[in-house]
Amino acid sequence: MEGKTMLRAAIVGATGIVGQQFVVALRDHPWIKTTALAASERSAGRTYKEALTDAKSGAFRWYCDEPPDPAVMDIMVQNAIDMDPAQVDVIFSAIESDQAKILEPKFAASTPVISTASFFRYDEDVPILIPGINSAQVSLIDEQKKKRGWKGFVTPIPNCTTTGMAITLKPIYDAFGIKRVIMTSMQAMSGAGRNPGVLGLDIIDNVIPHISGEEEKVQKETQKILGVYSGGAIKSATFPVSCTCTRVHVLEGHTEAVFVSTEKSCEPADIARAMRDYDGFPGIDLPSAPKKMIVVNDDPFRPQPRLDRNTDDGMATTVGRLRKDNVLENGIKYVLVSHNTKMGAAKGAVLVAELCINKGYIA
Amino acid sequence: MEGKTMLRAAIVGATGIVGQQFVVALRDHPWIKTTALAASERSAGRTYKEALTDAKSGAFRWYCDEPPDPAVMDIMVQNAIDMDPAQVDVIFSAIESDQAKILEPKFAASTPVISTASFFRYDEDVPILIPGINSAQVSLIDEQKKKRGWKGFVTPIPNCTTTGMAITLKPIYDAFGIKRVIMTSMQAMSGAGRNPGVLGLDIIDNVIPHISGEEEKVQKETQKILGVYSGGAIKSATFPVSCTCTRVHVLEGHTEAVFVSTEKSCEPADIARAMRDYDGFPGIDLPSAPKKMIVVNDDPFRPQPRLDRNTDDGMATTVGRLRKDNVLENGIKYVLVSHNTKMGAAKGAVLVAELCINKGYIA
Amino acid sequence: MEGKTMLRAAIVGATGIVGQQFVVALRDHPWIKTTALAASERSAGRTYKEALTDAKSGAFRWYCDEPPDPAVMDIMVQNAIDMDPAQVDVIFSAIESDQAKILEPKFAASTPVISTASFFRYDEDVPILIPGINSAQVSLIDEQKKKRGWKGFVTPIPNCTTTGMAITLKPIYDAFGIKRVIMTSMQAMSGAGRNPGVLGLDIIDNVIPHISGEEEKVQKETQKILGVYSGGAIKSATFPVSCTCTRVHVLEGHTEAVFVSTEKSCEPADIARAMRDYDGFPGIDLPSAPKKMIVVNDDPFRPQPRLDRNTDDGMATTVGRLRKDNVLENGIKYVLVSHNTKMGAAKGAVLVAELCINKGYIA
Amino acid sequence: MEGKTMLRAAIVGATGIVGQQFVVALRDHPWIKTTALAASERSAGRTYKEALTDAKSGAFRWYCDEPPDPAVMDIMVQNAIDMDPAQVDVIFSAIESDQAKILEPKFAASTPVISTASFFRYDEDVPILIPGINSAQVSLIDEQKKKRGWKGFVTPIPNCTTTGMAITLKPIYDAFGIKRVIMTSMQAMSGAGRNPGVLGLDIIDNVIPHISGEEEKVQKETQKILGVYSGGAIKSATFPVSCTCTRVHVLEGHTEAVFVSTEKSCEPADIARAMRDYDGFPGIDLPSAPKKMIVVNDDPFRPQPRLDRNTDDGMATTVGRLRKDNVLENGIKYVLVSHNTKMGAAKGAVLVAELCINKGYIA
Repeated sequence: MEGKTMLRAAIVGATGIVGQQFVVALRDHPWIKTTALAASERSAGRTYKEALTDAKSGAFRWYCDEPPDPAVMDIMVQNAIDMDPAQVDVIFSAIESDQAKILEPKFAASTPVISTASFFRYDEDVPILIPGINSAQVSLIDEQKKKRGWKGFVTPIPNCTTTGMAITLKPIYDAFGIKRVIMTSMQAMSGAGRNPGVLGLDIIDNVIPHISGEEEKVQKETQKILGVYSGGAIKSATFPVSCTCTRVHVLEGHTEAVFVSTEKSCEPADIARAMRDYDGFPGIDLPSAPKKMIVVNDDPFRPQPRLDRNTDDGMATTVGRLRKDNVLENGIKYVLVSHNTKMGAAKGAVLVAELCINKGYIA
Repeated sequence: MEGKTMLRAAIVGATGIVGQQFVVALRDHPWIKTTALAASERSAGRTYKEALTDAKSGAFRWYCDEPPDPAVMDIMVQNAIDMDPAQVDVIFSAIESDQAKILEPKFAASTPVISTASFFRYDEDVPILIPGINSAQVSLIDEQKKKRGWKGFVTPIPNCTTTGMAITLKPIYDAFGIKRVIMTSMQAMSGAGRNPGVLGLDIIDNVIPHISGEEEKVQKETQKILGVYSGGAIKSATFPVSCTCTRVHVLEGHTEAVFVSTEKSCEPADIARAMRDYDGFPGIDLPSAPKKMIVVNDDPFRPQPRLDRNTDDGMATTVGRLRKDNVLENGIKYVLVSHNTKMGAAKGAVLVAELCINKGYIA
Repeated sequence: MEGKTMLRAAIVGATGIVGQQFVVALRDHPWIKTTALAASERSAGRTYKEALTDAKSGAFRWYCDEPPDPAVMDIMVQNAIDMDPAQVDVIFSAIESDQAKILEPKFAASTPVISTASFFRYDEDVPILIPGINSAQVSLIDEQKKKRGWKGFVTPIPNCTTTGMAITLKPIYDAFGIKRVIMTSMQAMSGAGRNPGVLGLDIIDNVIPHISGEEEKVQKETQKILGVYSGGAIKSATFPVSCTCTRVHVLEGHTEAVFVSTEKSCEPADIARAMRDYDGFPGIDLPSAPKKMIVVNDDPFRPQPRLDRNTDDGMATTVGRLRKDNVLENGIKYVLVSHNTKMGAAKGAVLVAELCINKGYIA
Repeated sequence: MEGKTMLRAAIVGATGIVGQQFVVALRDHPWIKTTALAASERSAGRTYKEALTDAKSGAFRWYCDEPPDPAVMDIMVQNAIDMDPAQVDVIFSAIESDQAKILEPKFAASTPVISTASFFRYDEDVPILIPGINSAQVSLIDEQKKKRGWKGFVTPIPNCTTTGMAITLKPIYDAFGIKRVIMTSMQAMSGAGRNPGVLGLDIIDNVIPHISGEEEKVQKETQKILGVYSGGAIKSATFPVSCTCTRVHVLEGHTEAVFVSTEKSCEPADIARAMRDYDGFPGIDLPSAPKKMIVVNDDPFRPQPRLDRNTDDGMATTVGRLRKDNVLENGIKYVLVSHNTKMGAAKGAVLVAELCINKGYIA
């Protein structure tokens, strides 16, 4: 990117929790600069700072650990429905699925859209990208643009619970094949957002054993992400995935207990090596990519969400408790922790943008 | 028991958390009366009340929700190592495994011992009883007494994480057979006790993905409990069990996500019916037995440990989220909540004593 | 009440968290029977059970520890705005202040209204009753009825944070006089309700140092409650009260650290005696009244909200850490725990109704 | 310090939680380098890494957010009782009070000791230093060395609950005088350490209203810190301080609700200005000093421990909710958050060392 002009980005849904994370993820970004913010009509016409300040109490509604980017505070928030997508080079969409259905195609007609919404994930001509895991699927964008007649495109990132599991399954799949996967998640509250989010009354001293729609998403997305791109289409992986998704009393960081049956027999040490050796970015240097996509910790009491979620600024997935499973054929089991609002949301989407820039899809 | 004298019970390890639960479980018991308390040398020679009161700060170390039995407060605590077992009709042991190894055989020479310790669980002539699930295995006591030349006996209860799963597997096993079981637990802090227990610093905003020795216990005990008693021996069930045991930020009540492959094909509704219809106590009336051993809740957000752990005073296991699993052959998955310190500890042990009384092993 | 017909009660705002607590508080009540339920238009025309069941997920939205009263489940919920108050003998109002402003006078024209809303608390002809503390102020109802020309009346209960402090100040005030009071509260999440309530994301690993409007309420209400009723009016107490109100990570039970300057010199032991000897109900027997209004615990680590909130079914206030304060003139300091949704809300309001019945204001 | 050799430091009590914080606080320090580690006999003779690794489970017992300094991992841990103090230029002591009594004078005979232990805090010839607040009291070291005949000296830092309050009182005291102070603390679990620390069972859904000895320490230390150094002695401030100290469900960061009566009348805005303008380090540049000692936040919902504890890497104290108090003469009240294990412990002690270096007491 040296010598080049910075790419201009709009964040749509900028006042929400994921929108704020986009502001943080783009702060000091070497390739991309936030030049436009959009949200609902209620925030439109006010500066970002005003839009985040509660008029009545004066409280400042900022939800990220990192402070807000001062350069962004004075940007005037636009009404998302009226925003001109042509004013930017890329749009980061942090809106709900039902709005995504309407707004994202409108934007994509002229401009690339990277989205955290699920609406387009399951369309045939739409990849669900995790750079470093299924980077080759980025080429499906060509088919999408051709088929839909868009100058831009839409690429959603996966559900935050899919991300860590898909990343850790990839080196296993490559080296030993996968027959079946069973997983139980213990998910952080931040995944539920703030509207309405999880009430303290409900989660204190408790586990909530269900997250609507989550299990189905993880099952479908994992197969698509680990599928093969060939002949202009993704052929999904065929191994079945079954999950139970629960919510626990954790702020950030999803913990997942995974049981895998592999095609070829292998030992836990083989899996550990495959994970440690996994290089998702051979010869490519993306600013938000983690140094290692997977960190394997031999301490039997790790990974723990509070201790491991921020590894490599929340972009690495930590694996521990790798051991044999005696129930599945060629059974292996492990526990992973993945940062659901960094690699699993805004920063993961910025990484997708970086891949698209590297491959020439955003310019 | 009408017209009969009350049976006299000693609680060994009476000052600890499980010992206190025994005091609560025996309060107002219709058949059994606490007449002796024993603990370590440090507490010996003081009344129970004195032994529970911190000399320096005056704090009263009582850890149960229910208040202590005033009738027990003035009993003089004996040194466990010197206690005469013949003074009582049954001994409830709430000591650590390494002490159980030494003290329980000494007591069992003359007196029945119901134990929460794991030391004798895996011996061939020792049953791991869950009344209502494997009541028939109580007959193994005859072999144990004969083989060891004891007038009493030792019957340990299972690990608290085994209990809920074994209970819910029983009606499935009876009706459809079981091929394999995979389980991830989210266990309450009370299971770790207080010495040293789980530090607030370690569990706040966190999940701890390992509990030493727990997974092995659950795997072995489940097979033994669901085994068949015949010809003076237990033939363990042969289906393999694989678990990942984790600790979460919950006070009481273990939550377990279970995946089962059955021998015969069946629908979730069949399992729900088998669980609801399950009657562990046909024709037997034990004071601590739950009305229903398994409560099936159709609300997709249940069971939750805080809301369901106290069902039937902590003696029932609550099941929810019963649905098909598409990964295992004839796969079924569900979530259960079991009260780890009621059915899973002292009150479960009292229920074992009641079964032994009913069957004539304690008199 | 013997030989008398049961009084008929309506609960308005019945589907909310406080409304549900009214259902629980009136279950098996010896004098009062729930015969009508009202809520917003959205719930009207459905049975109470239907109104509490989420149509989409099937989840049953019940928030009390105690199970719902089956007898109430089939009552058809009415639209509050259309409810005929004359069909019942007393109305329990669990609605927001802005609705109370409109609906409560409408109801009070014909029927007594006991309210948890704050709207009428500060009117001159309205008492804020804590039976046992300021029972004599019930006579102000006569003035209110006369002045407003109502057949019924409105009596709000205090803010839940006022209740415990006013109760514990009463015996001090009576015996030693009070010059000034400083208090810091650590309040439970349940006090914020569920709409929107406190998010888990905001309270995990945190303290929120402000609750809008709370401090002003406590300051004003305490003076009025401890005022003298005479000549048809309440003369508020004049000692100033200053608070800092915070929210902590607790489910139920407000904890308050109180510093009091008394008129007459006294020792902590004098205060303890005055509190223990305090009898709020000489010669009166109300079904929901606690045996002792104040329980003084000498353990230096008490009171604790989780251990003490349910004392006497949540109707007693627990006091501990009574000691000298060296900063204020005749300074005394202590910590109290009060159950904010039992004595501090629905059950406290039922106790007010019982006092009104006893005094002939409800019949 | 340019051109100078780095000063050599020993950390005594290096394996505990505060000891680990010293390792972190000295990582990449521009003036001081960790060259020796000491602990109990149990750890002696092993490398620091070995001493922190649980032999049985392989777990690595590291408790800081920041990773351990790799340069320190291979240092051989010495037995504290045998350590030669002359091998270093300064000793950071993170041991318990009863050990401090024995070891610290032994070390101080030859070498400066900065301590987190309370043992020497109340001796007449020992200052309790908070650089920037009572820097002038450092001169008392001259008297101490003279009186005790030591080549080195002992300077303890305050109790972590004293620190934030003393810092925020200082600009008030300077500008308006202080008559009396009342404070209620809501303290983090990390303040209790890990041995035995606060059990999760005790703090979940709870507040513990007592911390042994804490209130007395805060009361005495505040007066000494805000005292005047003159004529070779500290003349303590005379305004009385009264506290109630509680423990809440927070990982790090003490929250304190403070009520102050000032000598001169003043408005909250005057206090805010005095705090914002306060400059503790005029003309002095210490590496660990915060840019601003006090940050005043106007958001009515701040400060919150999770959001504000890390301000300026945990070295700044955040103040909010500054308002009038109507109970005390010239009453002002506010809430503060102070990082109890950064400014309140190891990093605060390193700041003391920096002051001593600047003033020539360590060289």
